[in-house]
Amino acid sequence: MEFTIQQIADLLKGEVEGDNTVKVSTLAKIEEAQTGALAFLSNLKYEPFLYTTGASAVIVSDKLELKKPVSASLIRVADPYSSFSTLLAYYQQAVLAAKVGVEEPCFIGAGSEIGEGHYRGAFSYIGNNCKIGQNVRIYPQVYIGDNVTIGDNTTIFAGAKLYANTVVGANCTLHAGVVLGSDGFGFAPQADGTYKNVPQIGNVVLEDDVNIGANTTIDCATMGSTIIRKGTKIDNLVQVAHNVEVGQHTVIASQTGISGSTKIGNNCVIAGQVGIVGHISIADKTTIGAQSGVSKSVKESGTVIQGSPAFDYKQNLKAITVFRKLPELQRVLDELKEKN
Amino acid sequence: MEFTIQQIADLLKGEVEGDNTVKVSTLAKIEEAQTGALAFLSNLKYEPFLYTTGASAVIVSDKLELKKPVSASLIRVADPYSSFSTLLAYYQQAVLAAKVGVEEPCFIGAGSEIGEGHYRGAFSYIGNNCKIGQNVRIYPQVYIGDNVTIGDNTTIFAGAKLYANTVVGANCTLHAGVVLGSDGFGFAPQADGTYKNVPQIGNVVLEDDVNIGANTTIDCATMGSTIIRKGTKIDNLVQVAHNVEVGQHTVIASQTGISGSTKIGNNCVIAGQVGIVGHISIADKTTIGAQSGVSKSVKESGTVIQGSPAFDYKQNLKAITVFRKLPELQRVLDELKEKN
Amino acid sequence: MEFTIQQIADLLKGEVEGDNTVKVSTLAKIEEAQTGALAFLSNLKYEPFLYTTGASAVIVSDKLELKKPVSASLIRVADPYSSFSTLLAYYQQAVLAAKVGVEEPCFIGAGSEIGEGHYRGAFSYIGNNCKIGQNVRIYPQVYIGDNVTIGDNTTIFAGAKLYANTVVGANCTLHAGVVLGSDGFGFAPQADGTYKNVPQIGNVVLEDDVNIGANTTIDCATMGSTIIRKGTKIDNLVQVAHNVEVGQHTVIASQTGISGSTKIGNNCVIAGQVGIVGHISIADKTTIGAQSGVSKSVKESGTVIQGSPAFDYKQNLKAITVFRKLPELQRVLDELKEKN
Repeated sequence: MEFTIQQIADLLKGEVEGDNTVKVSTLAKIEEAQTGALAFLSNLKYEPFLYTTGASAVIVSDKLELKKPVSASLIRVADPYSSFSTLLAYYQQAVLAAKVGVEEPCFIGAGSEIGEGHYRGAFSYIGNNCKIGQNVRIYPQVYIGDNVTIGDNTTIFAGAKLYANTVVGANCTLHAGVVLGSDGFGFAPQADGTYKNVPQIGNVVLEDDVNIGANTTIDCATMGSTIIRKGTKIDNLVQVAHNVEVGQHTVIASQTGISGSTKIGNNCVIAGQVGIVGHISIADKTTIGAQSGVSKSVKESGTVIQGSPAFDYKQNLKAITVFRKLPELQRVLDELKEKN
Repeated sequence: MEFTIQQIADLLKGEVEGDNTVKVSTLAKIEEAQTGALAFLSNLKYEPFLYTTGASAVIVSDKLELKKPVSASLIRVADPYSSFSTLLAYYQQAVLAAKVGVEEPCFIGAGSEIGEGHYRGAFSYIGNNCKIGQNVRIYPQVYIGDNVTIGDNTTIFAGAKLYANTVVGANCTLHAGVVLGSDGFGFAPQADGTYKNVPQIGNVVLEDDVNIGANTTIDCATMGSTIIRKGTKIDNLVQVAHNVEVGQHTVIASQTGISGSTKIGNNCVIAGQVGIVGHISIADKTTIGAQSGVSKSVKESGTVIQGSPAFDYKQNLKAITVFRKLPELQRVLDELKEKN
Repeated sequence: MEFTIQQIADLLKGEVEGDNTVKVSTLAKIEEAQTGALAFLSNLKYEPFLYTTGASAVIVSDKLELKKPVSASLIRVADPYSSFSTLLAYYQQAVLAAKVGVEEPCFIGAGSEIGEGHYRGAFSYIGNNCKIGQNVRIYPQVYIGDNVTIGDNTTIFAGAKLYANTVVGANCTLHAGVVLGSDGFGFAPQADGTYKNVPQIGNVVLEDDVNIGANTTIDCATMGSTIIRKGTKIDNLVQVAHNVEVGQHTVIASQTGISGSTKIGNNCVIAGQVGIVGHISIADKTTIGAQSGVSKSVKESGTVIQGSPAFDYKQNLKAITVFRKLPELQRVLDELKEKN
């Protein structure tokens, strides 16, 4: 996709300064941009790059006064950062929207329906009796089991796997290698030391506007549903166990694990590599620091915890400060004991 | 699959109370069940739901005395929980058993044999010279490299990858995205600061009745085999390095990592996000708490450890209790020092 | 592949002792080897196995004096370990080289070019406008998005997923389930508590001689590139976030996570389950112990750190030693306080 600077200026309601017939085909940082790229200048710390950039065009503030000649064409707008963000979003949408149609071979089972405007990549698999909305993008090698429901405008990247009976809302994004609906880890210990499988017949439900990162795994419920509510964003390599419920607009960073039947509130922020035990509740707006181990319910909204096991964030910081001085503490204590 | 209440009562050797022609097609929790579902009541804490449930039928104790009218049909049995578990197992088996036959296109190499009653999903790949038993289910997009052996009744869910020479026993379950047989992480440091690959030519062996969770990775041995023994259950996103041996009937929870050449005993319980260093042995019946870092061999059977680095579970708990009070300890010590 | 002992002796410039027509087809440890296998004896601790081994042939030192009769044929060389390593490398290369040609069905988009001597497995997918070098092995079910570049002699195992615009160098190895180029985890919090996606339009660049372990995920940059430099080796289930740069000849063990925009130096060694926060720099030759949490930049080359949060390795060890005695410390302190 190639655009003239004038086309982009019109879109952003900006003014061109320089050659308005210059064409650009990509977006880049001002310090890295080369011919054919459009960059932006918002933070004036980067202004020196404006005079040396290889970009074909740069979006700048309509108030900027040039200190030297600039070889790139300029697009002057009120808020360069916001204008550039708008372009980024257009660009990403355009790339996705370009994927339409059906590549062969791909597989679709009996009784499955799929809405208009969709993309189905080669080697993608859709089982029986699925209901898939409009403008859904199913990349190559995606697996969708029987009786799966998917809402409009959802994108499922290459090789994601959705077990039978999964429900995915509208406007969701599932990245490559995501697994939804694998068996919960349930095994009943027997008297002879062996384990018997506990059948897992529930499913996974993602509400609208949910993002799931690459190679993240969400197990199905034993019965009922493992649920990720509206607007929640989950990073790569996260584990969500059976019968977990994650509230709305919660953010969970990479490599965190949530054990079975735990309930996470709305608007929580959970950092990376956190572990949360099973059968507890985490209140709304809780913040959990990286590598924490959460072993008890959090009852008060807005709590901030850290540590393994996790407790109050500030107290944890203070305890860690003393931890580092423990050998000195020991020495002082030994001396005092000697004297007494 | 739809059954009449009478059919199910006959199966469970129970008595129907109410309309025995009612049909059910799914199983659900009594508090969530809707028309067409069969629920159960075991724990009497849930009895109030019996009088409000939307379930078409409920399995109850043959001793239960009703306090109010019930709209659902009842199936009276001696032990409702056990009867319901039986049905769950039947249900899961029936779903799996329904997958039979070969979906096209799928790939099978020269010299490979596969037993009767199997399922091969579309886009599944079987290399050369594989020996695959009876009633094996190979879901879509599974990869099975050359010279792989798989026992009877094993299920391999969508997109699992088995490198060449892998051996899988009977009655195993491998979930979506599992990788068996990737190269062990072996690189010999060279004098110039670069690394040279150490060839990894061994394989992975799973004995019978092993379960492996979604996106878990098990590396092949440098030479010989990385081995998971009979009845062991491994959760999602677990890492098992080259030449590791895990004993029988051991349970390993999500996101745990076991480094190269370590030997884990029988009947161990390893919680989530545990890290275990290489070249050590863990005795039978060892329990390792979540997020522990195990840096030394465990020699005594039945040991319980926790912490990073891990030591005795109870001592770790006591040390953590004092850790949280460290700022107070420091203050008291400073005062005493002042006085002396 | 089957070779006579004489053929192998010629390759290694060794001398055969015993029957030089014996044939071998595999390599094994001396204590596990059976008929048809070639083993080696380097560490004399293993000499007793020489007299009992089932191997058809054993590589031994040209200086070794036999204490008993040996049934296996011997190949005498100057350095048995080095000779055996040479054979292992030949063996692994031979296995890889045996995969040549195109298995159908596979998919290749418009405008894509691929060099001579390549392997493309069934159900592999190559998008539009890709440039792929010579002797590249693309295993079954690999996904390669549009505009991807791949250098000569690179191997991509089954089911790895490369998003559009990824660049992979020569002599790289990507294991099964690797994901390169998934969206960075960028979401802008809005005033109403919801999150807005920050478009991620950059890519992932791997330089030459890079190895990536099974199910590891590397996110694309927001703009520009997430970069893994020449010779770096990354283990299984590692997370590398957007805009990270990892230097040359660095080793990163399993389940480690590196947050966004962090820069790791050359020749670092990062152990398993480490977490590194975003927007920091780690100096060259830094060593980071297992399960560490790194929250601050490391400025001095050759630093060794451990702990969560991580600090000097030796000080951490000393502090941990006292940590384990904290209940005793508390008791002594309480007594002193009583007295004073």
